[in-house]
Amino acid sequence: MAITVVGSVAYDSIETPAGRRERCLGGAATYFSLAASFFTDVRVIAVVGEDFGAEQEAVFHARKIDSRGIERAAGKSFFWEGSYLDNLNEAKTHNTELNVFAAFEPKIPEAYRDSEFLFLANIDPVLQRRVREQMPDVKLVAGDTMNYWIKDHLPALKEVLKGLDILLINDTETKMLAGNNNLVRAARAVLELGPRTLVVKHGEYGATAFFSSRSFAPKGESAEHPFRAPALPLEEVVDPTGAGDSFAGGFFGYLASQRELTPAAFRRAMFYGSVMGSFAVERFGTERLQELTRKEIDDRFILFRELTHLD
Amino acid sequence: MAITVVGSVAYDSIETPAGRRERCLGGAATYFSLAASFFTDVRVIAVVGEDFGAEQEAVFHARKIDSRGIERAAGKSFFWEGSYLDNLNEAKTHNTELNVFAAFEPKIPEAYRDSEFLFLANIDPVLQRRVREQMPDVKLVAGDTMNYWIKDHLPALKEVLKGLDILLINDTETKMLAGNNNLVRAARAVLELGPRTLVVKHGEYGATAFFSSRSFAPKGESAEHPFRAPALPLEEVVDPTGAGDSFAGGFFGYLASQRELTPAAFRRAMFYGSVMGSFAVERFGTERLQELTRKEIDDRFILFRELTHLD
Repeated sequence: MAITVVGSVAYDSIETPAGRRERCLGGAATYFSLAASFFTDVRVIAVVGEDFGAEQEAVFHARKIDSRGIERAAGKSFFWEGSYLDNLNEAKTHNTELNVFAAFEPKIPEAYRDSEFLFLANIDPVLQRRVREQMPDVKLVAGDTMNYWIKDHLPALKEVLKGLDILLINDTETKMLAGNNNLVRAARAVLELGPRTLVVKHGEYGATAFFSSRSFAPKGESAEHPFRAPALPLEEVVDPTGAGDSFAGGFFGYLASQRELTPAAFRRAMFYGSVMGSFAVERFGTERLQELTRKEIDDRFILFRELTHLD
Repeated sequence: MAITVVGSVAYDSIETPAGRRERCLGGAATYFSLAASFFTDVRVIAVVGEDFGAEQEAVFHARKIDSRGIERAAGKSFFWEGSYLDNLNEAKTHNTELNVFAAFEPKIPEAYRDSEFLFLANIDPVLQRRVREQMPDVKLVAGDTMNYWIKDHLPALKEVLKGLDILLINDTETKMLAGNNNLVRAARAVLELGPRTLVVKHGEYGATAFFSSRSFAPKGESAEHPFRAPALPLEEVVDPTGAGDSFAGGFFGYLASQRELTPAAFRRAMFYGSVMGSFAVERFGTERLQELTRKEIDDRFILFRELTHLD
C-alpha cells in the first residue's frame, strides 16, 4: 500500500568527526522516502526553492518516489546547519532557515488520494495537521516531531497527536513531552495524548514500542508488554543525520508492505526500522540510502535478528 | 561449579528520587554473591570491620553463601555515600572510605580452593591480582572495574586485565579504558588488553558482548558478531546501586551452573544478567535480591525473551 509523507525536503550543512559536507540533500521527508521506498510506493508532499534542481529530483526518481507533490516556490529551500563534534548522539544546531516552508500551504495531488498510509514527518505541527485533515480516509497515520515543537508549539502539536495511530520520537523527546524522567511513565503519559502506539528511538541502542490500553492492531500486543528492537553496535558512524527519519521510513514502509498488521509484522517492522537507521549513518547525508540494495537490507535484518536471538 | 568472588562488602548511604537510606549493606561482592547464589555455590573473599555483625552475616547465610573468607579486622567497614538525584544512570559519589580495605591482605580459605570460577569484583586491582595469583587453577576468570581505577591505577589494572577471560564494564568505562569514543572500536581496543570477551553493560538498554579473535568458548561466536541482551524498560527504579554487580552475578552464576560453555548458554547468561540487574534496582540496597525467588527470576527471563522475540 502506498504511503504519502509530508515533511521537509532540504539542504543540510553537516560537520561530524568524519568531516564536513556543505548543502547536501536532506530533510526528514527525504530520508523517510528513501528508506520507505525499498518496501512500498512513496509519495512526497513538500516545498522547495529555486535552488532545488534536476540533480536533487533525480535522487527521488531513482528510487521511484513520486515527487509530484514537491511544490516549487520562489526563494530558497529549507536549510539546516549542524554538527556532532562532541556527541554523535545529539546534533548541535547552528542554523535553521525555514525559507519556502514559512509560507507553505500543502496541497494533496489527486494521484496521492488513494494512499492508505500517511506519515507526518518532523515539520511544523500546523502543516502536519493541514495534511492530516485533507486525508481523512487513510488507514494508518504515523508521525514524528522534535524538541523544538514540543517546547514552543505544544498546543498545535497536541492537536496533531490526537490524530496519530503511531508516534515515533526519541528518549529525550518522550520525557520532554510527558514532563517525566522515567521512560515507562513518560511513555504512558504520551499515549494519553492520542497515539495508540509509541515507538521510542534509542539511537545506537535500538527502539522500544509501547502500546496503549486502547491499542489498535497489532492485536495480541498488550499495554503491559513493550517490544524492543536492538540496533547493531556500529564501528563507523560517519553522519547521524537522518537516522531517526530512516528508522521511521523502514518501519512504516515495511508495515505498509504487509497485508495484515499482525504483532509479528509489527515486530519485524521495528527491526527494519533499526536496519535502515543503521545504514543511513554509514555515509554523509543520503549517500548510503541512495546506493543501497534490498539484499543488503535483508542481510542486515538477519544479522540484527541473530544479535539478540537466544536459542 | 562454585564461584569464588573477591570484592567489597560494605555499607552504603544512598539518596535517590525515591528516598534515602543510611548505612545499608552493600558492596560489589555482596550484590554479586546474592545474584549468583540463585544459580550456583558462591564463596566470598572480603574484609569487614567491627561494625559488621550477625545481622549482616545472616544476609549471606540466608542465601547459603560461604562467608568464611570474609575477614574481620579492627576498624570500620568500607563505606560509600552517593546519590542519583539528577540522573538515575550515574551515581554521584559524595564520600568513599576504604577503612579496613586499605590494609587488606586477601587470603583464600582452604575450602575455596576447588572453585572453578573466579570473579574479581570492583575493588583495587592490586587486590584483584593477589587473589588471581593465589588461584591459578580456576577454569574461568571474570572481572569488573570502575572509572576510578581506570583513571588513577591503570598500570595495576592492566596487569589484572591480562589474566581475565571476561571483563564486564559499562559504556563509559569501555570508552575511557580504550581512549576511544566509538563503542565498537573501544571494545576492540579493550580486547587487545587481555580479556577474550568483553561484556559492556548499558544500564536500562541491556548489555552487549564483544568477542576477540582469540576468543575462548563460547565456540561459534565470532569476533565480527557481537551479542546484545536487552533490558526491560522499568517503571520504578528505586535505587540503581548494585545493578551492574547484580548483572555480573546473574551472568557468571548462570554460566557456572552450566555443564558446557556453549554460545546458547552464554546468551542465556547475558539475559540472566539483565534479569538480575532489573530486580536489584526495584528496592533500596539488597532488599529486592534478599527476598527474590527463582520462580520470579525465570518468569522475568521469559518476559525478557519475549521483549525482543521476532516470530
